[in-house]
Amino acid sequence: MEAKFRSDTAGKPIRCRAAVCRGAGEPLVIEEIQVAPPKSGEVRVKIICTSLCHGDISFWRSESGPFSFFPGIFGHEAAGTVESVGENVVEVKAGDLVVPVVQRNCGECRDCKFKGNACTKFPAASLNAMPRDGSSRFLDKDGQPLHHFLFASSFAEYTVVDVTHLVKISPEVPVDKACLLSCGVTTGVGATMKAAQIEEGSTVAIFGLGTVGLAVALVLAFNSLIFCSCISILRSHLISLKLIRTVAEGARIRGASKIIGIDKNLEKFEIAKKFGVTDFVNPTSCGKDSVSQVIREMTDGGADYCFECVGSTSLIREAFDGSRQGCGKTVILGADLHGSPLSIHPLEILAGKSIMGATLGGIKPKQDIPHLAQKYLKKELRLDGFITHEVNFEEINKAFDLLLQGKSLRCIIWMNR
Amino acid sequence: MEAKFRSDTAGKPIRCRAAVCRGAGEPLVIEEIQVAPPKSGEVRVKIICTSLCHGDISFWRSESGPFSFFPGIFGHEAAGTVESVGENVVEVKAGDLVVPVVQRNCGECRDCKFKGNACTKFPAASLNAMPRDGSSRFLDKDGQPLHHFLFASSFAEYTVVDVTHLVKISPEVPVDKACLLSCGVTTGVGATMKAAQIEEGSTVAIFGLGTVGLAVALVLAFNSLIFCSCISILRSHLISLKLIRTVAEGARIRGASKIIGIDKNLEKFEIAKKFGVTDFVNPTSCGKDSVSQVIREMTDGGADYCFECVGSTSLIREAFDGSRQGCGKTVILGADLHGSPLSIHPLEILAGKSIMGATLGGIKPKQDIPHLAQKYLKKELRLDGFITHEVNFEEINKAFDLLLQGKSLRCIIWMNR
Repeated sequence: MEAKFRSDTAGKPIRCRAAVCRGAGEPLVIEEIQVAPPKSGEVRVKIICTSLCHGDISFWRSESGPFSFFPGIFGHEAAGTVESVGENVVEVKAGDLVVPVVQRNCGECRDCKFKGNACTKFPAASLNAMPRDGSSRFLDKDGQPLHHFLFASSFAEYTVVDVTHLVKISPEVPVDKACLLSCGVTTGVGATMKAAQIEEGSTVAIFGLGTVGLAVALVLAFNSLIFCSCISILRSHLISLKLIRTVAEGARIRGASKIIGIDKNLEKFEIAKKFGVTDFVNPTSCGKDSVSQVIREMTDGGADYCFECVGSTSLIREAFDGSRQGCGKTVILGADLHGSPLSIHPLEILAGKSIMGATLGGIKPKQDIPHLAQKYLKKELRLDGFITHEVNFEEINKAFDLLLQGKSLRCIIWMNR
Repeated sequence: MEAKFRSDTAGKPIRCRAAVCRGAGEPLVIEEIQVAPPKSGEVRVKIICTSLCHGDISFWRSESGPFSFFPGIFGHEAAGTVESVGENVVEVKAGDLVVPVVQRNCGECRDCKFKGNACTKFPAASLNAMPRDGSSRFLDKDGQPLHHFLFASSFAEYTVVDVTHLVKISPEVPVDKACLLSCGVTTGVGATMKAAQIEEGSTVAIFGLGTVGLAVALVLAFNSLIFCSCISILRSHLISLKLIRTVAEGARIRGASKIIGIDKNLEKFEIAKKFGVTDFVNPTSCGKDSVSQVIREMTDGGADYCFECVGSTSLIREAFDGSRQGCGKTVILGADLHGSPLSIHPLEILAGKSIMGATLGGIKPKQDIPHLAQKYLKKELRLDGFITHEVNFEEINKAFDLLLQGKSLRCIIWMNR
């Protein structure tokens, strides 16, 4: 049933397999679908492998609300090759290795050129359709349109992605590693590099030891990448240079540096050690104390940085409370679609704490993901440990089970191996 | 009644005048008080001039809550000379020009050495007494102790300040300008230099055009200081360097730069123009639109930085809503002692917005205030426009009236002129 990669498919619909989901929480079903050719600004991609991220699970479970993806094709962390391109696409060509990214990056709008990573090219774009015209490129076997998902829909042998949601990767990068750079690992790595800009000697608490949380730990513990870039920033700033010298000289402070991992799943602790986490807190073993109290005690007043990688409002509150008075930064990396609002008194913030969010770790995909790929090739970024399982496309529901049971970090789903 | 500056007062109590407040919202009364000699780590200061800050007003109005300052001596923005020092004080000596600072800065604790500006030297210190022993150095004419206020109590001819709350200033700086650096101006300038680190080309909204808000505007509009330091930070960071070049080349973005002032007091707009504010919003003239909607329209999507300089939870919410999706930073500089909590959904933050607080603008007093004083002496920081009124000590209640009526920015109160 698989359509082979051939140049003569360009401009024509492709019939292939996709894992279709027809209702919230329902198992995916491998169906034959039809994928239309890319329109102007779009690219048809042959998916080689995809993986499952907690973001997929959140939306897959979501029965109501502003997002309706049923029937539709989930999946947003993947790698593949360009099959054909629509009009006005010059950035990639057939055969290029590419990864889809949820975060749009047109490179032309004020936000892409300036700062942050919230591209404003298609402000009214819905998350369940193509961003330029709001329509679908997928038809099921009965000729009914299927919803797209976060501009990727990678649980299909072929998908159509707007070029603003596609990043070209060096073909030297193995496809399964390229896949990791599409979302989760990049979010964690980006959060430490771009969003939080952690200084040497800082104490860090990571809430949730999944792929995002462990990517945060990985960079902090093992990669010179982050410290080099931070120190070079600080070196140019005289006041901060003085500070960092003070820190460097202060063995006490240096000795106090900790990377604390917080997770209910004890099995995560062993793997987290390999990612550089130095201390652990199991929220169910804190007795009468809250997690934030335990963190404040472990860090003598609070962690300099708290990363919330789960997407729970109550955990964000614990992270904020566990962050250091006067300078503690809480970085929100998880999404709680149906969670309650966060309530914080301004006086709790006034003394110098901060809260920030960072979709995809605050990185600009087209600029930063190729940079991370180079770091991987230079062995400055280790990606191997994240892949704990691999399955064939037909076993995609097993990947869901593994993630839901907390047994996997990343399960690579191979479309045809 | 004034005690002259003489070396022979050292070690003895001094009788002098103070403006005492005996109940929330009551006019101050000039009374004769007795000021004890400084104990170990403390300094007795002859106040030359003081001024009135919104912080004084907030606490002066506060009838209940965790802070009780009655009867007590308010005032925390001031300049004076050291009359005598207690044991173990080597940092200043009799005759030195000094300013008190609310923000402690011991220079020895982890936070003073590392980052942020929340000194943890005396964690249990109450705001209404000396920080080391929790007692008072003031007695009223009946021999009853008077409360201290925020470790300063500058509405007195003599006060006792812990050395960790005192900053030595170059004697070349006129005392009334030194007084401004003690709190309000430093908060605004510090917020742009240290806390927010604003990039060239950014759009900024300032809620509240008092001294703090106008100090923010001043730095953004006129001082090379801030842009130089930001650009030097960015220059060392390759990715950001690329960004800033893009920005520099983008006339559209440069042209879009705005400093928007928001205030209900129309009289503030004329003076704000002189401080570099380019656009104005009067919240009472927005019709059906909220202030945040108006700001989003004026900035084509939201301001890069929103500074809240009033201390109102509802204004903080407007500032957050008026900040730019994906990168907008809301900086809280005002304190609402009895205000309601801020309610924000994590998804509103996740996409890249941030909220931060910055007491005294995030600066480390002993390091940064002398630096600002030097900038003033080099004419790189303009302080003159902030002083709109001057009164004698006996007229101190007039200074309250002027600030409450929104007529003054800073009213210098001269102790003896």
